[in-house]
Amino acid sequence: MASMKKLINDPATVVADALRGVAAAHPELRVDHDQRVVFRGDAPVRGKVGLISGGGSGHEPLHAGFVGSGMLDAACAGEIFTSPVPDQMVAATKGVDGGAGVLHIVKNYTGDVMNFEMAAEIVAADSGTEVIAVVTDDDVAVQDSLYTAGRRGVGVTVLVEKIAGAAAEEGQPLAEVAAVARKVNANGRSMGLALTSGTVPAAGRPTFDLPDGEMELGIGIHGEPGRRRVPIANAAEAAEMLVAPILADLDFSGGDGVLAFVNGMGATPLIELYVVFQEVNTLLAKAGVTIARSLVGPYITSLDMAGCSITLLKLDDELLRLWDAPVNTPALRWGA
Amino acid sequence: MASMKKLINDPATVVADALRGVAAAHPELRVDHDQRVVFRGDAPVRGKVGLISGGGSGHEPLHAGFVGSGMLDAACAGEIFTSPVPDQMVAATKGVDGGAGVLHIVKNYTGDVMNFEMAAEIVAADSGTEVIAVVTDDDVAVQDSLYTAGRRGVGVTVLVEKIAGAAAEEGQPLAEVAAVARKVNANGRSMGLALTSGTVPAAGRPTFDLPDGEMELGIGIHGEPGRRRVPIANAAEAAEMLVAPILADLDFSGGDGVLAFVNGMGATPLIELYVVFQEVNTLLAKAGVTIARSLVGPYITSLDMAGCSITLLKLDDELLRLWDAPVNTPALRWGA
Repeated sequence: MASMKKLINDPATVVADALRGVAAAHPELRVDHDQRVVFRGDAPVRGKVGLISGGGSGHEPLHAGFVGSGMLDAACAGEIFTSPVPDQMVAATKGVDGGAGVLHIVKNYTGDVMNFEMAAEIVAADSGTEVIAVVTDDDVAVQDSLYTAGRRGVGVTVLVEKIAGAAAEEGQPLAEVAAVARKVNANGRSMGLALTSGTVPAAGRPTFDLPDGEMELGIGIHGEPGRRRVPIANAAEAAEMLVAPILADLDFSGGDGVLAFVNGMGATPLIELYVVFQEVNTLLAKAGVTIARSLVGPYITSLDMAGCSITLLKLDDELLRLWDAPVNTPALRWGA
Repeated sequence: MASMKKLINDPATVVADALRGVAAAHPELRVDHDQRVVFRGDAPVRGKVGLISGGGSGHEPLHAGFVGSGMLDAACAGEIFTSPVPDQMVAATKGVDGGAGVLHIVKNYTGDVMNFEMAAEIVAADSGTEVIAVVTDDDVAVQDSLYTAGRRGVGVTVLVEKIAGAAAEEGQPLAEVAAVARKVNANGRSMGLALTSGTVPAAGRPTFDLPDGEMELGIGIHGEPGRRRVPIANAAEAAEMLVAPILADLDFSGGDGVLAFVNGMGATPLIELYVVFQEVNTLLAKAGVTIARSLVGPYITSLDMAGCSITLLKLDDELLRLWDAPVNTPALRWGA
């Protein structure tokens, strides 16, 4: 077997080692290494709705890179591509409970949804903390998938965390923060493609085989099968293969325009993401859709997969204001 | 030949296409597409020292991603791994000249140094604008290299752009801004490694061959040869192979500690960079070196090369204050 080319110590310790790196690099955060939960240093924030998320590791900076003021209060790190266990979510929920309730932001994968539900039940029985869960399911590529009933939660999760985080930071109550989170999910759509497979450290070889000259449209962030394999296309064609299904799924025209998010899957460099952004810009202009805000970079990745995803979010006054609000996390930071 | 797996339209148009993407994603910047210069939208800023940098493309976000208040006033984009031409630097210098002179931040590669020098001479003859150039040469790996006499300029360039940019933003005169830039270069050291080669689009195949099971220590950001090939090491050993030569080259102990910068080469995902950061943290603690600030992510890349570099910068009160000052660019943004 070819040796795996990764900067790690041992496949069994990748998540623990990376969390120690997060703690060392970001002293403003507090990392519970036993539970594998990354907290805001000042959690719980009294009177503020607490926001937690989490999921399998391998999608960095999602979720720990989005912990900080104006975004998440805590993130639970599962093993690579494996849901955290309910105990982690219980510890996170209790640790961010400032008396105003806690929002769980959950990507729609069967294990994550089930474990967050169990955690909410445990917390309700234990301490009576009010919890509302919002499940993201923005991926238009496939209806059901390897680990999902319904659509998968992908890029819009980053935007939910930012925008609902801003709503919580300005003191909105739990029901309203949850409503904002649901609105972002309802107004957002995504689709991705892979040029190469990522390699799970414990597996030691690529998750799937993607021959030279082919790419996979509609790929999931764990390498789950997408819609179809096609010959490698140029950036303009590739962008159209992602944007067209998104625009077919929701009317993005009019209003206050969209947030256009071109995301790297982990091994695709920024120069290529800007080439794709330019094509998205051209396609949206043709479709009469205005780009009001943008985000370009690797924010929800799939280990060392090469490829990209595109997320569009339909904006209104409220979402624009909350997107622009200050945020101070390792991976998104402005105005603070 | 295996097909190249990149999200591009045509190897000949990558830089132009990416610059159109930068313009579309960042309307607060102004892009001169003829000259391939990215400017702050408000350049020239009257009375402020102008900072420009530039170099071959393929290292994104360096340099265009660092244009904005508190950092660069303009960045010149050459072809992939090819210095911009003097005309570009002349356009940039004139475009950022607010009457207080212009600093050229130049990575030590023969073509870049020569072309920035020619541009400074042209500008001096044309308009009398005062220009000072500061050349970065922080790479301890090799003395001379494929494109360099002396050491190569790598990771410290990002830190020079940030810190000198802050000095200019607070109104320091050209000589002092240049002195700060030189101090950062003098106090900074870097070394990198590659797990895989990047692929230049126009070449269509990897720049060098790096067999399974091997990595290259001291690699340059254009794939220039490093110090030696070694069997793939774990993250702890790899970090030590980079940190030891850095610590042997400059005494980093005492004082106000260091800024520790773990940089991704383009195709290495963030989870691995945090694993490396943890090892750097352990090594520095053993060496009695305190980490006062940190930066983790892909900031100076080499297309789709997998690997990382480590940069340490010895801090003092002045450098700490300028590092912490507000910055508002596509790739570094805080407090603004």
